[in-house]
Amino acid sequence: MQQSATAQVEDIVQYMQTLGQQARAASAALRRVDSGRKNAALEAIVTRLDAARPMLALANQQDLQQGRDNGLSEALLDRLALTPERIDAMISGVRQVAALADPIGQIEGLGYRPSGIQVGQMRVPLGVIGIIYESRPNVTVEAASLCLKSSNACILRGGSESAASNAAIAECIRLGLEDAGLPATAVQVVATTDRAAVGALITMPQFVDVIVPRGGKSLISRVASEATVPVIKHLDGICHVYIDAAADLGKAVAIADNAKTQRYSPCNTMETLLVHVDIAAQVLPRLAAIYREKGVEMRGCSRTQEWIGDAVAASEADWTTEYLAPILAIRVVDDFDQAVDHINAYGSQHTDAIVTENLTLARRFLVEVDSSSVIINASTRFADGFEYGLGAEIGISTNKLHARGPVGLEGLTTRKYVVFGDGHVRG
Amino acid sequence: MQQSATAQVEDIVQYMQTLGQQARAASAALRRVDSGRKNAALEAIVTRLDAARPMLALANQQDLQQGRDNGLSEALLDRLALTPERIDAMISGVRQVAALADPIGQIEGLGYRPSGIQVGQMRVPLGVIGIIYESRPNVTVEAASLCLKSSNACILRGGSESAASNAAIAECIRLGLEDAGLPATAVQVVATTDRAAVGALITMPQFVDVIVPRGGKSLISRVASEATVPVIKHLDGICHVYIDAAADLGKAVAIADNAKTQRYSPCNTMETLLVHVDIAAQVLPRLAAIYREKGVEMRGCSRTQEWIGDAVAASEADWTTEYLAPILAIRVVDDFDQAVDHINAYGSQHTDAIVTENLTLARRFLVEVDSSSVIINASTRFADGFEYGLGAEIGISTNKLHARGPVGLEGLTTRKYVVFGDGHVRG
Repeated sequence: MQQSATAQVEDIVQYMQTLGQQARAASAALRRVDSGRKNAALEAIVTRLDAARPMLALANQQDLQQGRDNGLSEALLDRLALTPERIDAMISGVRQVAALADPIGQIEGLGYRPSGIQVGQMRVPLGVIGIIYESRPNVTVEAASLCLKSSNACILRGGSESAASNAAIAECIRLGLEDAGLPATAVQVVATTDRAAVGALITMPQFVDVIVPRGGKSLISRVASEATVPVIKHLDGICHVYIDAAADLGKAVAIADNAKTQRYSPCNTMETLLVHVDIAAQVLPRLAAIYREKGVEMRGCSRTQEWIGDAVAASEADWTTEYLAPILAIRVVDDFDQAVDHINAYGSQHTDAIVTENLTLARRFLVEVDSSSVIINASTRFADGFEYGLGAEIGISTNKLHARGPVGLEGLTTRKYVVFGDGHVRG
Repeated sequence: MQQSATAQVEDIVQYMQTLGQQARAASAALRRVDSGRKNAALEAIVTRLDAARPMLALANQQDLQQGRDNGLSEALLDRLALTPERIDAMISGVRQVAALADPIGQIEGLGYRPSGIQVGQMRVPLGVIGIIYESRPNVTVEAASLCLKSSNACILRGGSESAASNAAIAECIRLGLEDAGLPATAVQVVATTDRAAVGALITMPQFVDVIVPRGGKSLISRVASEATVPVIKHLDGICHVYIDAAADLGKAVAIADNAKTQRYSPCNTMETLLVHVDIAAQVLPRLAAIYREKGVEMRGCSRTQEWIGDAVAASEADWTTEYLAPILAIRVVDDFDQAVDHINAYGSQHTDAIVTENLTLARRFLVEVDSSSVIINASTRFADGFEYGLGAEIGISTNKLHARGPVGLEGLTTRKYVVFGDGHVRG
């Protein structure tokens, strides 16, 4: 009963198109569902998850066992594990999404025009959202809740390492949707781990309105280069802190420390520190002592090495590398302009901060740095949906079109023009 | 001195990349230019255009002569002609753009978060905009003014039929920019009419942030399918008017007449009329008399033919055809749901209207029709940037992401997060 590889790919494409058609139909149904019903469905999902704890643990054990057999690293196994505390966190995450204000249906700017018609813009769901993610199974619930709350149908494709856990979570979501009388196809988890499923998902614009990849750079670049559906994404977080000559020394040290060392792996962690030459003597030795203490490897330009003797010489590649690790590139710059030029040339338009007491330069930094978050006198680590008050985050976008920066519920919506008349015609 | 075709294409790619690099540099300079300087540049362009009337007429004569030699239709020659009145209109268009409020730099939603940081979103230019258009040379000035007003650099690629006119207009813009002390590369008109230039323009995301194609469907689909840069576009305007059973007869007739016959070629003109079966007997004969009088060919379903004897039988293809001509598809539907299903299945998500006095159905139509403009009791012809109060229009978008519906200045901008602290770090 062996099939040829081509026939298998055709089967998968066929399967994904079925999911797509079902999602499109569910999306039309979701447009009519009111806030109360959506919240009831989220509460029903909570109840189902809570009741399924033994089943979730069992499924997760299966993934962990297989992960161990396949030689997954301890770090990956840890990300995969669904501990009771993580199930608690999943449940409280769904409740937080239920508690958010419903963006759908809000009409902005409704006003009369000289012709007598009344025009405004109504916030509406995007339609169908495809989400592609890697090992952490809690993303299944997070993504499903945000899509449901914003009245979008979604198709979720998790990593093969967490297939059993994702399937068990998917079953809870399906039952919760049915409990609340919503179509179970509002949230569909792709049942195959074949990579052809991803290829199909990102190339069916007739069924999918936007793709959100969550994972490593290789996953995201593959999705971005092959997709014919729009992608909300960021590839790199090469974030900078620039310590200006007019910086307050205490603030500069606190921010440059926090931005690098509070956590090493997030995308909003600083990867390059820029220091004005006039303040280098004061700030670099103090910071070097902190980084040294915390085990951060420093890679500096030649002027940096004058103040930090144990800094390794930075190469050109260091200015464009997202370490996601206790490594920091450091460059001493001549002036404000050189700092801004460096950020715009080598950065990834993600998040960049200046430390300065100079109002004029702070105002210029806001305007001249072309990044999704531009920060004055605070740590880059604040660039996050929760910290910005979005209530939740589906990801961070360095796209310029549509959502830019941390993406919450609003990024999963669009607006349409609504026009009211009383028989008005155009003259 | 003949070059091989490949070498020529390489030269063009090289040339386009030079334009791209220059535009990127101009875009960084434009970020620092204040509203007053931008308006001064627009006024200087007006002065240059006004002074160049004889030169513009001469260049346009050259295009018209070549068009006649190449056998262009009278309609195309008419679109190409730069009459004194059209130059007046161009000039007054630039002045209107200068008078619009400057969207750049506005900060929305600035507020404190529990951590103490202050977060808002600042409106900023997209960066570099590529505009690809066909015969009408006035688009050169329109597009340049809107991009300049929104602090974007632009690369304009007009049609080969209007090459001389576009070059003459480009010279006025260049001189106007220089008069105002702005970089002349803020607006660049592509000097070659080779199609390879379009191919290069739409595949250099490192230099171009968004492409706006303006022209026929074949141009737009080619651009959309080949571009690696995001495209703001609409392919079709298959717009519907649905006359509900609860419609006011007078409003229904006025709207269905205006939506079809006020002008035949715009994308917001009605192409399919849907009529509830219960009102068909009252409304169809009255409308048929009007359409007949105005020479509109009617293509109807079998129930339509019962009331309009001279209606041709509509085929499936008629429901998905944008006629842009005095032809109208007409379908009698059983109920509201069938009308909405028809619009969502066959429409182009552009602009759709309902005529009804039934409040519940009007409210449902707003929510359930998934189009960029949804209209209650008014003509589809209102879907337009000027009518909606945007002040100007660079095009209409049926994309769901970013700008949707008529696109004005705001569609040429994006937002970035701005964060203010006093040394805040994340705990």
